[in-house]
Amino acid sequence: MKEPVRLAKRVTNLGVETAFLVAAKAAAHAAKGNKVYPFHLGDMNLPTPANIVEAAYRAMRDGKNGYTPNAGILPLREALACEINATRKTSYSPENISVQPGGKPVISKFILALMNPGDEVLYPNPGFPIYESQIRFHGGIPVPYTVIPDREHFTFDLDGLEEAVSERTRLLIINDLHNPTGAEMSAEQRHRISEIAVKHNLLVLLDEAYFDVRYTGRSASLVSEPGMVERSLILYTFSKKYAMTGWRVGAAIGPKDIIEIMNKLNVNDESCTSHSNQYAAIEALQGEQSAARQLLRILQKRRDRAVELLNTIQGVSCSLPKTTFYLYPDVSEALIQRGFSGYEDFLDTVLQHTGVALCGRPHFGACLAGESRYHLRLAYSGIDLADLEEGLTRFKSFLES
Amino acid sequence: MKEPVRLAKRVTNLGVETAFLVAAKAAAHAAKGNKVYPFHLGDMNLPTPANIVEAAYRAMRDGKNGYTPNAGILPLREALACEINATRKTSYSPENISVQPGGKPVISKFILALMNPGDEVLYPNPGFPIYESQIRFHGGIPVPYTVIPDREHFTFDLDGLEEAVSERTRLLIINDLHNPTGAEMSAEQRHRISEIAVKHNLLVLLDEAYFDVRYTGRSASLVSEPGMVERSLILYTFSKKYAMTGWRVGAAIGPKDIIEIMNKLNVNDESCTSHSNQYAAIEALQGEQSAARQLLRILQKRRDRAVELLNTIQGVSCSLPKTTFYLYPDVSEALIQRGFSGYEDFLDTVLQHTGVALCGRPHFGACLAGESRYHLRLAYSGIDLADLEEGLTRFKSFLES
Repeated sequence: MKEPVRLAKRVTNLGVETAFLVAAKAAAHAAKGNKVYPFHLGDMNLPTPANIVEAAYRAMRDGKNGYTPNAGILPLREALACEINATRKTSYSPENISVQPGGKPVISKFILALMNPGDEVLYPNPGFPIYESQIRFHGGIPVPYTVIPDREHFTFDLDGLEEAVSERTRLLIINDLHNPTGAEMSAEQRHRISEIAVKHNLLVLLDEAYFDVRYTGRSASLVSEPGMVERSLILYTFSKKYAMTGWRVGAAIGPKDIIEIMNKLNVNDESCTSHSNQYAAIEALQGEQSAARQLLRILQKRRDRAVELLNTIQGVSCSLPKTTFYLYPDVSEALIQRGFSGYEDFLDTVLQHTGVALCGRPHFGACLAGESRYHLRLAYSGIDLADLEEGLTRFKSFLES
Repeated sequence: MKEPVRLAKRVTNLGVETAFLVAAKAAAHAAKGNKVYPFHLGDMNLPTPANIVEAAYRAMRDGKNGYTPNAGILPLREALACEINATRKTSYSPENISVQPGGKPVISKFILALMNPGDEVLYPNPGFPIYESQIRFHGGIPVPYTVIPDREHFTFDLDGLEEAVSERTRLLIINDLHNPTGAEMSAEQRHRISEIAVKHNLLVLLDEAYFDVRYTGRSASLVSEPGMVERSLILYTFSKKYAMTGWRVGAAIGPKDIIEIMNKLNVNDESCTSHSNQYAAIEALQGEQSAARQLLRILQKRRDRAVELLNTIQGVSCSLPKTTFYLYPDVSEALIQRGFSGYEDFLDTVLQHTGVALCGRPHFGACLAGESRYHLRLAYSGIDLADLEEGLTRFKSFLES
């Protein structure tokens, strides 16, 4: 296998989730016999509720093993329409829904269906790194907008967003409730965004992966604002609410003409989503919800304890997000006081000395001009309470030693 | 939802499997209370072996519900390397394997990873329609080569293929054993293709979806030829051999630098393939094989009976493919004698009068210059023996009435 293989030029623009590089370092550290505290990845160490597992098994045994319609099975699309309409004040029908093998495929298909090379796409930075990767990969121009601290937590910088709109802006990606910061929009902000989108005729991806991962209050969707249902594609996923990350079931929800293209892309890319897993998803939506509520209670305990511990550390400050399973503490003082040269130095050293595996702000996009604070991102979805406490206690001792 | 949504330009080049249009017509016919004989789609009406179902269930209950590595779980990649090396005389390791949600994603990812806009790609016509769709969608130029009748059946037109190579040819798609004709290459042909590929430095997609669907003899792979392992990406799927079409598990197998890009595309497109379904795939490869053998015996009976019945019909002639679960009868005389204006007229009338749902040659690409015969494609994977006999008897009565 010596001959150099000629890859397509677009491959040079293909990004990854650099959090996986942290995972590789963490695995190497563990392989040396060290205990690792996994705060770096957004996977979950909680079991999928048993009623969902049983529904998948029933479907498999009932012979649900052939192809499904490319759009997904009708009862799942009906159940999703019902769920979305109840929570987003919409009136979608099954024809507005395209089942997908996870939430992620909605990102690439949104880009493929709606972006021409040279189009500008507004996306959140810090944010989920796949947005920027897919925009670049298919020849678009990623234009970042950001989040800024507000009184209690973080908020989206809508002034900056509006300034970033140009003649060439075609698409807008919104991730409300936000990974990595847990920021969410106020009603006023949602209204303002909808006005911007309508005024500039933008098509909008609403990545609502964390819509149901919240501990107080109720989530609201930008799609409920005037003029938004016609121009929005919702990314829905079963991964987080039901601890089904590895099942790969999600959906794109939007106007029929866009959904038709999503379905055509399904025909081309993977035919359909795993048949029995679609039945599991119906059970998730329509079956007993107590296990899903219990998942949230467990996550909330972890959140509360982690925030409490982080705020006891000298030079660390962490606000309390109401949503997602991520924390985004400011560690500027700790990092600077201890003389670290930057994120990589800091994260590597912390891992080596404590076993605590973390992501930093650069794992969610290149830092923007004017950023002066240092933030980490901790995921508490994949680590139980005892290890969370042990890990953060070690982290504290290391930083304060 | 009145506002016209602006789709990306590339969407106009996105094709579908037009066999799904036949399915829509068949469903409409059935909805009127008519019996339909489904010879039109390549799905299977045979159950996934029970040991495979149980393996998936065990995995789900064992908590295999989180993300897997983007490349797929190591034991599945090990099992696949073992299987491919044993049947293709290769020496792949797990690093040469990227698990995919079906065989189909290998097509789009091959194109995305290796084709630049303007590149010419040789592909089989008649053939699986997604090749041409994906080439066009991503800005390439599809250049067809074809199959021609030989003494016993059909064979690939390698003279035509070689003539079609130009300075701009970069990729070659081979589907040996071939949908829709069931053609397969001789050892001599495989050798000739490998010489062409090496001489012109082509990268080759080996769509071997039907490698294990054969009734006599043994399948051989082009990858075993000199110079091919460095330039080939194998499309492997669990769909056909194990009646797992709806499970969506397959793999890309090839040189490490291409597999790395496949894995990066996994990170971007769908993270990973359904976790428990990957464990089912391990059981498929390593567990008891008697159910898979039994599937082949059932298919063989259907094949034999269908070919026998077709050849009793005046103006119809059908050769006996050793592989795939498709037949490609020549119906020129029957179509012309009955005064049909062409394929659509013929297929629609047959469906209306007999309930027999069929695909024609145009469902596998636009007819090429010089084609004068009319062919149908019958799939016998989704219809049991009694209905197969009843349907073809009706078909015969209609054509001979």
